[in-house]
Amino acid sequence: MGRLLEGSEIALAKLITLVENNPAGMTGVMPMIQHRLGKAFCIGLTGPPGAGKSSLASQVIKALRSAGAKVGVIAVDPTSPFTGGALLGDRVRMQDHYLDPGVFIRSMATRGSLGGLARATKDVIKLMDVFGFDYVLVETVGVGQTELDIMQTTDITVVVLVPEGGDGVQAMKAGLMEIGDIFVINKSDRPGADSMAVQLQGVLQMNPRYASAMPPVMLTQGTDGKGVAELVEAVRARQAILGDTDLEERRREKRNLEFEEILKWAVVEEWKGLAGSDEKLKDRLSEVVEGSKDPYTMLREIFPYGCIRPLTD
Amino acid sequence: MGRLLEGSEIALAKLITLVENNPAGMTGVMPMIQHRLGKAFCIGLTGPPGAGKSSLASQVIKALRSAGAKVGVIAVDPTSPFTGGALLGDRVRMQDHYLDPGVFIRSMATRGSLGGLARATKDVIKLMDVFGFDYVLVETVGVGQTELDIMQTTDITVVVLVPEGGDGVQAMKAGLMEIGDIFVINKSDRPGADSMAVQLQGVLQMNPRYASAMPPVMLTQGTDGKGVAELVEAVRARQAILGDTDLEERRREKRNLEFEEILKWAVVEEWKGLAGSDEKLKDRLSEVVEGSKDPYTMLREIFPYGCIRPLTD
Repeated sequence: MGRLLEGSEIALAKLITLVENNPAGMTGVMPMIQHRLGKAFCIGLTGPPGAGKSSLASQVIKALRSAGAKVGVIAVDPTSPFTGGALLGDRVRMQDHYLDPGVFIRSMATRGSLGGLARATKDVIKLMDVFGFDYVLVETVGVGQTELDIMQTTDITVVVLVPEGGDGVQAMKAGLMEIGDIFVINKSDRPGADSMAVQLQGVLQMNPRYASAMPPVMLTQGTDGKGVAELVEAVRARQAILGDTDLEERRREKRNLEFEEILKWAVVEEWKGLAGSDEKLKDRLSEVVEGSKDPYTMLREIFPYGCIRPLTD
Repeated sequence: MGRLLEGSEIALAKLITLVENNPAGMTGVMPMIQHRLGKAFCIGLTGPPGAGKSSLASQVIKALRSAGAKVGVIAVDPTSPFTGGALLGDRVRMQDHYLDPGVFIRSMATRGSLGGLARATKDVIKLMDVFGFDYVLVETVGVGQTELDIMQTTDITVVVLVPEGGDGVQAMKAGLMEIGDIFVINKSDRPGADSMAVQLQGVLQMNPRYASAMPPVMLTQGTDGKGVAELVEAVRARQAILGDTDLEERRREKRNLEFEEILKWAVVEEWKGLAGSDEKLKDRLSEVVEGSKDPYTMLREIFPYGCIRPLTD
């Protein structure tokens, strides 16, 4: 722990592995770093597969680095355990930064992390924060609930789309229109980028979430870095607007949700332990498993006085 | 309930709305239908946005209908509440079937369903099963955890990809390679379909999940129905191979996971109620929300004797 604070990347890597494999609270890590949290500004980068997020992330890192900032990167990939990340060709693009001591890149597997990926990612963000990064960049692939949960963690969210992905309807389907603070149309050299930007602005204007302030819609090219300086500027502007007060308000909401997630994780772990060891519970559960009783009824029968028992005095 | 069993579509629609808005157990619906479940064969259709799943689904419905089967369809869309589904242009393609009394189509919104979308979808599948459909087709957009949870519910899963989406890496990223019983390359008139099929087979061969039997990789065109007869044949073959024994085994596993999900939902609901009403808990929670205490430590402090209290005698 001390070595983490002294800036040992090896200590950081080891702690990340630890919290990936065990909820960080179990390892005693979180209580020790809690009072040091909150210095890093966390940027989420999300969008559909193939939007060029990795290339764009690489350019954003470059821009942040030239301004002297230290950057931690978390790449969240729902790859299967059998690939082990080895087939992630486009991660290679990020290798520009592997030798830079001001950049630390970590890929996270989505399967099998105890207590869920969103939980583990949140803990890793905290570790990177305490390590001393000015920015933590979280890149997620995909558009599902886990990604939304992760984005719920970041201080701002950049949604990356591509011209051809974007007849508007498809993008909306992905639920991405709800979560962006900044929208980027990447691969903007492709046909249709400008008209998509206009269309996207139209869609965003209809969304009550953005009634008070429209999020910027920007054009970028991750391959050659066009538009990236403007994107980083927009991120900084957003950071400045949020200030300490609004940022802290956002983080408060997030901590509340995080606690609920950890409670759910703990409950299921406990349940699995009990259902695996208690013969009477095993018998009850088998009624559900065999389909002879519906799960809602069983829940009421197993927990007639409510499910949880907090200590309230 | 009686009217559901008599085949009243209005009764079905009303019950679906009920379980969407309230967990079905709360409404007393599930205990009443539990012993009638399991007749419908449930097909999941999933894949990235823009893969043409709705058109393909429409063709599959047509093929199932011409064989005399009744089909229930659940379209799960992570659209935002503000669109209200009105902008879902491609749903229109399914309208071919709206006037067919042997087809019932229901769109489900992803946000705001109490207890989660996966939970609500499972209950709706059950309602459609009891209503008397031979097949329930569940179409999901996207590639996240919620979609995986939903696919975990279906008896078989068809993964739909398109040639241009598919450099293999992108598809793997989406976590889709893990869950398919049948893989379809739709829009197969586009360039690269054949080579993608070969590439996909190569990727699937590397996956231990498919060591005993390779899933079929098929080419389709949702627009004109090319390859759809073969796809439906493959679904039926899979259904025959599963038989009653393997199918029931799969369903047992699913019921176990379903119970855990419902437990998590119940716990969070209960927690929110308590944290909103109990002053002492409110105070404790505020330490987490303000960031003065880490959530894992707080969890242990609030639940020193474990979180849940099942009745074991």
